Amino acid sequence: MPDTKWTLSADRFFDPDPAQRAVARELYATVADLPLVCPHGHVNPRLFVDENASFGSPADLLIIPDHYVFRMLYSQGVPLEALGVPRTDGGPVEQDHRKIWQTFAEHFHLFRGTPSGIWLQQELIEVFGVEEKLCGENAQAIYDHIAAQLASPAFSPRRMFERFNIEVLCTTDAASDSLQDHQAIRDSDWSGVVLPTFRPDAVVNLDTPNWRAHVDALGAAVGFEVDSYSALIRALEARRAFFVEMGARATDHAALTAYTGELMPHEADAIFRRALKGAATAEDATRFTGHMLMEMARMSIEDGLVMQLHVGSFRNHNRAIFERFGPDKGCDIPTASEFTHNLRPLLAKYGNDPRLTLILFTLDEDTYSRELATLAGHYPALKLGPPWWFHDSLAGMRRYFDRIMETAGLYNTTGFNDDTRAFPSIPARHDVWRRAGANWVAGLVVRHIVDMDDAREMVLDLAYRLAKRAYKL
Amino acid sequence: MPDTKWTLSADRFFDPDPAQRAVARELYATVADLPLVCPHGHVNPRLFVDENASFGSPADLLIIPDHYVFRMLYSQGVPLEALGVPRTDGGPVEQDHRKIWQTFAEHFHLFRGTPSGIWLQQELIEVFGVEEKLCGENAQAIYDHIAAQLASPAFSPRRMFERFNIEVLCTTDAASDSLQDHQAIRDSDWSGVVLPTFRPDAVVNLDTPNWRAHVDALGAAVGFEVDSYSALIRALEARRAFFVEMGARATDHAALTAYTGELMPHEADAIFRRALKGAATAEDATRFTGHMLMEMARMSIEDGLVMQLHVGSFRNHNRAIFERFGPDKGCDIPTASEFTHNLRPLLAKYGNDPRLTLILFTLDEDTYSRELATLAGHYPALKLGPPWWFHDSLAGMRRYFDRIMETAGLYNTTGFNDDTRAFPSIPARHDVWRRAGANWVAGLVVRHIVDMDDAREMVLDLAYRLAKRAYKL
Amino acid sequence: MPDTKWTLSADRFFDPDPAQRAVARELYATVADLPLVCPHGHVNPRLFVDENASFGSPADLLIIPDHYVFRMLYSQGVPLEALGVPRTDGGPVEQDHRKIWQTFAEHFHLFRGTPSGIWLQQELIEVFGVEEKLCGENAQAIYDHIAAQLASPAFSPRRMFERFNIEVLCTTDAASDSLQDHQAIRDSDWSGVVLPTFRPDAVVNLDTPNWRAHVDALGAAVGFEVDSYSALIRALEARRAFFVEMGARATDHAALTAYTGELMPHEADAIFRRALKGAATAEDATRFTGHMLMEMARMSIEDGLVMQLHVGSFRNHNRAIFERFGPDKGCDIPTASEFTHNLRPLLAKYGNDPRLTLILFTLDEDTYSRELATLAGHYPALKLGPPWWFHDSLAGMRRYFDRIMETAGLYNTTGFNDDTRAFPSIPARHDVWRRAGANWVAGLVVRHIVDMDDAREMVLDLAYRLAKRAYKL
Repeated sequence: MPDTKWTLSADRFFDPDPAQRAVARELYATVADLPLVCPHGHVNPRLFVDENASFGSPADLLIIPDHYVFRMLYSQGVPLEALGVPRTDGGPVEQDHRKIWQTFAEHFHLFRGTPSGIWLQQELIEVFGVEEKLCGENAQAIYDHIAAQLASPAFSPRRMFERFNIEVLCTTDAASDSLQDHQAIRDSDWSGVVLPTFRPDAVVNLDTPNWRAHVDALGAAVGFEVDSYSALIRALEARRAFFVEMGARATDHAALTAYTGELMPHEADAIFRRALKGAATAEDATRFTGHMLMEMARMSIEDGLVMQLHVGSFRNHNRAIFERFGPDKGCDIPTASEFTHNLRPLLAKYGNDPRLTLILFTLDEDTYSRELATLAGHYPALKLGPPWWFHDSLAGMRRYFDRIMETAGLYNTTGFNDDTRAFPSIPARHDVWRRAGANWVAGLVVRHIVDMDDAREMVLDLAYRLAKRAYKL
Repeated sequence: MPDTKWTLSADRFFDPDPAQRAVARELYATVADLPLVCPHGHVNPRLFVDENASFGSPADLLIIPDHYVFRMLYSQGVPLEALGVPRTDGGPVEQDHRKIWQTFAEHFHLFRGTPSGIWLQQELIEVFGVEEKLCGENAQAIYDHIAAQLASPAFSPRRMFERFNIEVLCTTDAASDSLQDHQAIRDSDWSGVVLPTFRPDAVVNLDTPNWRAHVDALGAAVGFEVDSYSALIRALEARRAFFVEMGARATDHAALTAYTGELMPHEADAIFRRALKGAATAEDATRFTGHMLMEMARMSIEDGLVMQLHVGSFRNHNRAIFERFGPDKGCDIPTASEFTHNLRPLLAKYGNDPRLTLILFTLDEDTYSRELATLAGHYPALKLGPPWWFHDSLAGMRRYFDRIMETAGLYNTTGFNDDTRAFPSIPARHDVWRRAGANWVAGLVVRHIVDMDDAREMVLDLAYRLAKRAYKL
Repeated sequence: MPDTKWTLSADRFFDPDPAQRAVARELYATVADLPLVCPHGHVNPRLFVDENASFGSPADLLIIPDHYVFRMLYSQGVPLEALGVPRTDGGPVEQDHRKIWQTFAEHFHLFRGTPSGIWLQQELIEVFGVEEKLCGENAQAIYDHIAAQLASPAFSPRRMFERFNIEVLCTTDAASDSLQDHQAIRDSDWSGVVLPTFRPDAVVNLDTPNWRAHVDALGAAVGFEVDSYSALIRALEARRAFFVEMGARATDHAALTAYTGELMPHEADAIFRRALKGAATAEDATRFTGHMLMEMARMSIEDGLVMQLHVGSFRNHNRAIFERFGPDKGCDIPTASEFTHNLRPLLAKYGNDPRLTLILFTLDEDTYSRELATLAGHYPALKLGPPWWFHDSLAGMRRYFDRIMETAGLYNTTGFNDDTRAFPSIPARHDVWRRAGANWVAGLVVRHIVDMDDAREMVLDLAYRLAKRAYKL
């Protein structure tokens, strides 16, 4: 077994310059132990329903459900079957979690210098107390070590939630979701705060696979048939009201582009009816999504839900993988995005209304300084979300701070969210952000751009206050 | 009152590494006190006509006319009315300049880490001797302090011009402008050099609001009716000749895209006549602008005026604000730009002609390394202007140096211009550039990419010589 | 003569921070003297056929054939004729190589801070032992010095190849090339490894100037008339087989866009026949190239040749220069590129096939983090080439590491290639990469992102192993 001790430096991710590092360390110390505010993510609420729930095996926890992890092995020729990723047809995939773990460990060098590598290392060390750098030789011993802990009550989801010092965790839930898991958590005696987020993509994006089934589910949830555009609007309003009642603070919307544009009610209705007949065109879908985003902004003004818009992911780019394994398998690929023209109709109608908070996310970093920072630096309703997905990384954060902050201003951004379904990575992800933020502000301090009084406010804003304020938490 | 002393570090904006900082300091010292060359900006020449002119109140000087400042407060929910920004309908806005100043001071934290914050701090300290960090508590005392100075003869525009050590200040003037203010300055016994710049956008961009009135004004200026394309050309040539006579060195052109393309004279005439009848289409406007840019290049070759082209700003993106307050209210938003195809017709015809100097400005930083640096690194007629508008910031300058210089070469760039209507911010803006430039060159020195002999030449070029040479000043 | 001694610092290109610099130095030392692997370039193989070949005069070697060099002087008004660049019409250009050298030396300051400046300095010092910084005053003395060396047998191409420690040098060769120079090298007793690369652009891009002549040459090479699409496919397969026999490891393809898409055989044939009649449209050319890229991927899977695709250069942008001097004269200008949609057809068909290695190159750095890193981080067949052309520079490499590595992962990249026709610049170019790579990895080490064990592996991968593995060398 290799003798490489695995440790986490107290100075990790800080610039090496001693002056900047000292300031970064000082600033980071003021926010390192603050509670975690998680306003956007994909953790399954069911985990927290049962006091005694378990995360399963190390492979169940860290590999099989995490497309950040298995895409990297797949890109180097490891079949997803070998990693236990379930097939849509139920066909055979590796069932031996020790073998899956071994394959993962033998390819761990692929994560050198990547955010996944950083998160995994920090999780293994801090959450599970792993003391040696993972590799093929020690893979089984480390598997045993983690498995033993996952089997203990102290590693149940609720206990980890508490140990992680999570102040609030928002999930992402379909418009038709019964929110029974959220209800069960509220009904329990557990004090953890887990809130739903309203995500109606499956019904407002007409090109969603199995769209009709989602509309039917929505109808079932509201108790009336969603057979017209006006019924759809009524159903969405009803569901939003229910989500608000259940503690939701926000909605979430994904779209390939940021296109917005209002339809006349009869146009929207005609498109919706074509879709019900399975006859909607691609253009119908684009126009309908663009219209529904405007409707969502209107509803947000009325019911106070913060509106999140994630733009630019070409989903399921690799059709063979999608057909064999389904969505969210590491083959969503960004495309160039445009906001200046596309968002104008929505901003013209609602952008000056202080009751609206519209938080934008992009996968196209070129829009940071060109479009997003300038839009957010003007429209009262607009705020910018943190670096998203592939850009939720040290260099990604550096680019985000560099290209956005001078023009948008810190106070038109919304702090951090981890956006993850990988629950045990949450502390590591927030820690990367807090360190990156402290280091960025320290860079401003040592360049005499801000003083230490301002710097302390800024790191506190980045780490905690901006997210709470933006999401009304 | 808070006890935060406000100071400017002698090392501000330099990298913290001691080796790089020492070199940056040494290089900066060689250019820190050079006269300011201001080849492009928007200061009102009338300020310098009257020996005893005044800038008005602190709010008049620093807030009400400065869209860099009030857009940031607006983005956080402060109505423009509360900042005294005049309405187009003459409706009521805040008239109490002390209240405006108080609102500004209470939101001063919004400028943390922004270029506006840097300029404002440096102006307040260096121009007005403010010694405390501005905040709500000390707002009125600082107002009194500044107001008292603005009332004294030493703070008249001419005295500040002299104190700022401005060698030359170029303004921006409509094609129909009488240049009477420039004439009055020339006729006075004051030695300050204030030169006009010829900006014909209002007549060559057919989609300008009130285009017809601008054409009529042009006709009035030349003494013949501009009722045909050939009359327009004659009028523009006549006005350019007048501007040259009045000391102009350059023209300036704004366009949404860099599209260029020559029309046949009869095509240009047909479009122009349609426009006179109010019947020009959007496509007419695009083609006419593209054609007129080529005509402007031709005229520049003939009369020697340097041609500036600013591309990519979607003006008045927020229609509600435009209607209520007019243009230049912080709601011009950048769009993606394209130069390789769009400029080709112009470059094919004039790009190899050493008599032409065409200086490009972009709001799309993605074009820096992809298109602009490579075009400027080849075509003799092409030069690149400094980082423009939102990118006239420390990080913006770092990206500009990083992405342009290796490929374009320093000598295909044109130094700095402040592009500002905020007169007292001029020294601060040049200082940021000189420091950023010294720091960039110092980074090359400590990495052994250039030696100190070269470095000294380069900072002098950046701070002073490139602008003088490019603009023939 | 100036007394400026010219030296190369052992620490050049490393960050100035002492901690990072020390690590960079240590890492660099482990790879500094490794043999050079050159899997892609444009050196003329004929140079190595004759034991006694010579590079000619200093101007022949360093100026006249190097568009990186003369474009910079041209951009500042020096006519290409004055630099001895041959005209297509055979008209007069400067023949006095001493005068050409003098002009070059007098403009040497234009290369301050550019990669060309770095390469030239290092070549002059390390290859030719020049001890003084080149300038107008010492130009003739340095000319004499270099000319004397070029005349000696120790400076023949073969001796320089050996002294440079080149392990393998791949050339780029037309599909119809006889490879007689390669054969002559193999037949000689010289042990240098020079391998061909199959580049069929001239026959698969229908819009190539003189396309028909290239098709005829291809027919002559295979011994049958290429008069149909199926004949073209057979001819290409035959030539690829011959290249494989001659040691080729790769093909190379240039396209204005990354568009791929399969045609039905009868469609491809119809287009090909239209082209033979000189009647192909621009759309035909686009579709045919897009189809042939897919055919090339198929053939690569069959014959094992690595497939390289270079996208985004608008060739011969300056028509006047093209007509007067021909192609490759410094006027190829990048355009915005798109990969997510364009490559999807090819990736859908072949992207999951581990037998294919498709290496992508871009001139649009915006695609680094948005598209290329995410595609390469998923598809097993896809790898990313090093920063290309204008971006093969220190800042270009920094951006490449910064924007690609976190998402693609180091192991989906392919190390370095020099891509040069300027043979004596090869060691300098590899040295810049090795230093930049060591410095990047050192930056990860001092930020505690990777440990020294990983770091040593990473710099070895960057400098040597990735290129060998990707190109099967």
